[in-house]
Amino acid sequence: MDPSPSALLTDLYQMTMIEAYLESGQTDTAVFEFFVRKLPPQRSFLMAAGLEQALDFLQNMRFSQDELDWLERTDRFSKSLIDYLANFRFTGEVHAMPEGTVFFGNEPILRVTAPLPEAQLVETRLINILHFQTLIASKAARMVLLAPDKLLIDFGLRRAHGAEAGLLAARASYVAGFSGTATLLAEKSFGIPTYGTMAHSFVQSFDDEAAAFEAFARARPKNLVLLIDTYDTEAAARKVVMLAPRLKELGIAVSAVRIDSGDLSALARNVRCILDAGGLHDTGIFVSGGIEEGTLIAFARDAAPIDGIGIGTGLVTSSDAPALDCAYKLQEYAGLPRRKRSPGKATWPGRKQVWRRYDSDGRMLADILSTEEDQQEGETLIQVVMLGGRAVASRPSLHDIRAHARRQLDQLPPELRTAKSAAHYPVQISSRLEQLAAVADRIGSRP
Amino acid sequence: MDPSPSALLTDLYQMTMIEAYLESGQTDTAVFEFFVRKLPPQRSFLMAAGLEQALDFLQNMRFSQDELDWLERTDRFSKSLIDYLANFRFTGEVHAMPEGTVFFGNEPILRVTAPLPEAQLVETRLINILHFQTLIASKAARMVLLAPDKLLIDFGLRRAHGAEAGLLAARASYVAGFSGTATLLAEKSFGIPTYGTMAHSFVQSFDDEAAAFEAFARARPKNLVLLIDTYDTEAAARKVVMLAPRLKELGIAVSAVRIDSGDLSALARNVRCILDAGGLHDTGIFVSGGIEEGTLIAFARDAAPIDGIGIGTGLVTSSDAPALDCAYKLQEYAGLPRRKRSPGKATWPGRKQVWRRYDSDGRMLADILSTEEDQQEGETLIQVVMLGGRAVASRPSLHDIRAHARRQLDQLPPELRTAKSAAHYPVQISSRLEQLAAVADRIGSRP
Repeated sequence: MDPSPSALLTDLYQMTMIEAYLESGQTDTAVFEFFVRKLPPQRSFLMAAGLEQALDFLQNMRFSQDELDWLERTDRFSKSLIDYLANFRFTGEVHAMPEGTVFFGNEPILRVTAPLPEAQLVETRLINILHFQTLIASKAARMVLLAPDKLLIDFGLRRAHGAEAGLLAARASYVAGFSGTATLLAEKSFGIPTYGTMAHSFVQSFDDEAAAFEAFARARPKNLVLLIDTYDTEAAARKVVMLAPRLKELGIAVSAVRIDSGDLSALARNVRCILDAGGLHDTGIFVSGGIEEGTLIAFARDAAPIDGIGIGTGLVTSSDAPALDCAYKLQEYAGLPRRKRSPGKATWPGRKQVWRRYDSDGRMLADILSTEEDQQEGETLIQVVMLGGRAVASRPSLHDIRAHARRQLDQLPPELRTAKSAAHYPVQISSRLEQLAAVADRIGSRP
Repeated sequence: MDPSPSALLTDLYQMTMIEAYLESGQTDTAVFEFFVRKLPPQRSFLMAAGLEQALDFLQNMRFSQDELDWLERTDRFSKSLIDYLANFRFTGEVHAMPEGTVFFGNEPILRVTAPLPEAQLVETRLINILHFQTLIASKAARMVLLAPDKLLIDFGLRRAHGAEAGLLAARASYVAGFSGTATLLAEKSFGIPTYGTMAHSFVQSFDDEAAAFEAFARARPKNLVLLIDTYDTEAAARKVVMLAPRLKELGIAVSAVRIDSGDLSALARNVRCILDAGGLHDTGIFVSGGIEEGTLIAFARDAAPIDGIGIGTGLVTSSDAPALDCAYKLQEYAGLPRRKRSPGKATWPGRKQVWRRYDSDGRMLADILSTEEDQQEGETLIQVVMLGGRAVASRPSLHDIRAHARRQLDQLPPELRTAKSAAHYPVQISSRLEQLAAVADRIGSRP
């Protein structure tokens, strides 16, 4: 899908502010950073995602003649604004954490450095892109940690919030370690492996459940997965056992059965017994339906004989925390640090770097949030990715991003790996950043 | 935005099932209905929305040559499937509740009657479209009921789940009674009024807050709204008072001030005093930042002097219930009723109608869910909207849809109008529908 479906997919106030910036000559270099103020109570870490789409957006954002004509017809905007938009190209710099990087509150994951009107104009859609994939990758990572030995598949397109959310949830969850998705377009767009079984409607459309299974097996003999919970799950499992010899003669093996309702742990156990008793030891059990972190914990606790799990709504809406308290804030303008001091929403000013230290086992120990030129100990997480409006280097493949995310999860301290009440990871503020905040406080607050 | 961004925006299993339907000759007429099984605990009613986009999707869904070539290249699909997709046009019938209609659990809001492969193929995206706008209209309606005398504006694009969610949340909330949106594209696409103020970055980019206000006022003198919480809200309100006479000389009035953080009720009261003492009785107060139903209840309880409210995240993610337990289920095939009996997910079979009765004051009294041909007392809520793949009549305007929604909310019983624990509205099952379920139970469950 188009990363910039329309340049008008933005807030009206971006237009009015740019008009005012142009009129009052506020066109010096501005530095904005995107960060999450505070993690949701149900999260002890977040995972950055969406940078690829964000860079595509910045590189391709243009106003079409149709859009410019429409703006003019509304009779609400100055000629100088419309001329500015007609020539608009993003020419700035971008620094960012690589996708798949674990991060915490107040740590910027993206910085834009550009003339103020440019950096302002891209705000709304940039947040919209980065927020959603980061939200979903962060949710998916928790699920991956709770079910490390299962095949996890995104089943969420139908309940995702619109078309783009459905497609990009597949990408974000794959980044975080899911094995694939049911969304076919995600395979075409991103090369993500797709998985699919059958729906209840298929079974229902036949007068007889066993006939439905056989018809499906004959039509789609490879990777055959039969859905067995339309009427009575255990009875259907027995029908699969009865059908198996006839399918075997045709060279067809039942790869797995799927259970989509009921007490999944208990049903999986009973179905496993039925399949094993019928000699179908190689037929796996795939479950779906209302899966959340709590379900995954229960599966592990019950040692449920489950091989694969399809996760929809809980994943793609990040249902326990459907938004992050993120912001894209002006941190520097015309060479001077800027800071917002609204209650509960104060920000750290200036261009920043995040330093990460590890223990001797390679586990994350603590981060330091510093000014950009500050020298601290550890690994720097923020790197330049765009100069003069062009990406600086070849972008990492989705495969590389996923491998990076995997290493990040492996480096998490044990207390952040559980789904229990959020553990706190230390993020220190460097003394130079503290000093810069004091400088910023003297700007903009004149009585 | 394109209602059918790609025909491949669907689940892989739709392809495999259609292949099996074609191969086994399951191409008779199927009837699917879209409904919500059970309302979220925080909802006592829902509001149907998204029908216009759903009909656009059905009417326009096509597979492009590029998509067909890709499917062929994957080497996973039969020639007969690809030929079928190449010629695909939706030719079926659609019956639906008008957008803006209030509805309850198990009541279908849309029915598709078409050859089984057609009705199956459209499933995923149809759910994706109807679910999201219905989710948001239902959330927005609650907010409208809690703040009937305020200007409510959708501020959610940045935190919405992707591009389409941002755009369609503006539409769905406007259907439910919001006054407008900040999303510019929603004005171009749907004619929804847009509202906008300024961001903190605008204020921060000036060394002096009062200078920022004056520059903005000169550049955008009409409908001037000044954001006053960047540093110290009450101090900024006093700056507005001091600035007002100079602006008045230029013929500029301060329409409103906006407060985006802190204790909004208390700040609004203090700012009201400062503005009134300065003679700015006509300057309104607009608030935003983390608004939920609870905030609206508090504003009413405090009689806070607030004129307008911008609502973002809580609205566009439906944060307290970010998904509905909706389904698109086969209810009839080849003239026989069909029913799923999975635990907790059993459905009512057949083609259905919803009848609504009212008391003498015109308030909703109870609904009856019946078979289509059943005669019950009351108003019928489901009507034909598409025949042979074409819309049957001119579609209602967004203005008409909004007026219908307004009447629906006016007809709600008082106990459903509050945000308190969900009240229960009676939905009865007609005896003929009970009988049909028994008939359906005899199909598909042969041992």
